[in-house]
Amino acid sequence: MFISFEGIDGSGKSTQARRLAQALNARGTETVLTREPGGSEGAEEIRRLLVEGRGERWSPETELLLFTAARRDHVERLIRPALARGAWVVTDRFADSSRVYQGLARADLRQLVEELHRLTIGIETDRTFVIDIDPEIALTRGQARGGVEDRFETLGLDFQRRLRDGFLALAAEFPARIRVIDGSGSGDEVAGRVLAALA
Amino acid sequence: MFISFEGIDGSGKSTQARRLAQALNARGTETVLTREPGGSEGAEEIRRLLVEGRGERWSPETELLLFTAARRDHVERLIRPALARGAWVVTDRFADSSRVYQGLARADLRQLVEELHRLTIGIETDRTFVIDIDPEIALTRGQARGGVEDRFETLGLDFQRRLRDGFLALAAEFPARIRVIDGSGSGDEVAGRVLAALA
Repeated sequence: MFISFEGIDGSGKSTQARRLAQALNARGTETVLTREPGGSEGAEEIRRLLVEGRGERWSPETELLLFTAARRDHVERLIRPALARGAWVVTDRFADSSRVYQGLARADLRQLVEELHRLTIGIETDRTFVIDIDPEIALTRGQARGGVEDRFETLGLDFQRRLRDGFLALAAEFPARIRVIDGSGSGDEVAGRVLAALA
Repeated sequence: MFISFEGIDGSGKSTQARRLAQALNARGTETVLTREPGGSEGAEEIRRLLVEGRGERWSPETELLLFTAARRDHVERLIRPALARGAWVVTDRFADSSRVYQGLARADLRQLVEELHRLTIGIETDRTFVIDIDPEIALTRGQARGGVEDRFETLGLDFQRRLRDGFLALAAEFPARIRVIDGSGSGDEVAGRVLAALA
């Protein structure tokens, strides 16, 4: 099984990805926890170019090519080998982030996202959980975290709102694969919703 | 006019690109000299990932995506604006390098190179000069230069030979656009051949 968590920064998806991987490992299913952009040595180097610096540092097209390069490295060096040996993979973000961030919120590039995915990535998740939360709360949480990885947060609240709408639209487009999880309440409550949706 | 110089590392193409740009500027034609990978602020940051480190650091597909990302930035932030204001652009490497390095010498990815070019780059050079030289001499020159930008040189002499064959095959495929220039002799002699071929 190949599972991704999606949502806007500050939605709690990274916490939920970690909790699910821990729960799966605890029940004896070897599970690899990973993230995008990054997850492999090379992709983590590309990550720095993507999540740091000014929002307009890259055009949406260049940004999409960099995300796709990082994803290709991640898939071929970590995800495919793990799945091939029978492990489960839980990733904090995957291709749906490109469909929403570059395909819809930063620019109208959905067709280019799909063509690059078909040409260079190919693999799709078996199940995706969108952790849904009020963009205003998410942005406050994200900003409170600090650090240098704030490039997308600098794009502002309207951008976060477009992202949320985009993830909900994507879930409606792929109802069999994507489940929207209410991200409000405690971490335990959200984790319970994820486990119930996975069962 | 949009002009590129191509060839293997150590062929003398960088010197010839600089000389042509100087000659054009001297005769009053505003000419921008640039290079790939790089040429714009963002693309130069991507360059470091591509030309430093181990040869097998990236798969041919990831490498191609990174070159394409750098080229997209270079085209949209430097090349197209320069051409739009009527300047000439002379670049040390452009898309033909991807056709030969990733499309043929590192892997058989020519079709992917062309699809990515069509989807994200679009622009083609008006004239391309391949500076042709014995791969053994070029490799010796390149290694003598030292520095950290030796990732492709570490792939060895057989790889340089495949590159040379690839550039000659590409010139045969696009006879109207690509001219092969004999790279032997002094810099003055080679520069004379380039100017004669441009006239």
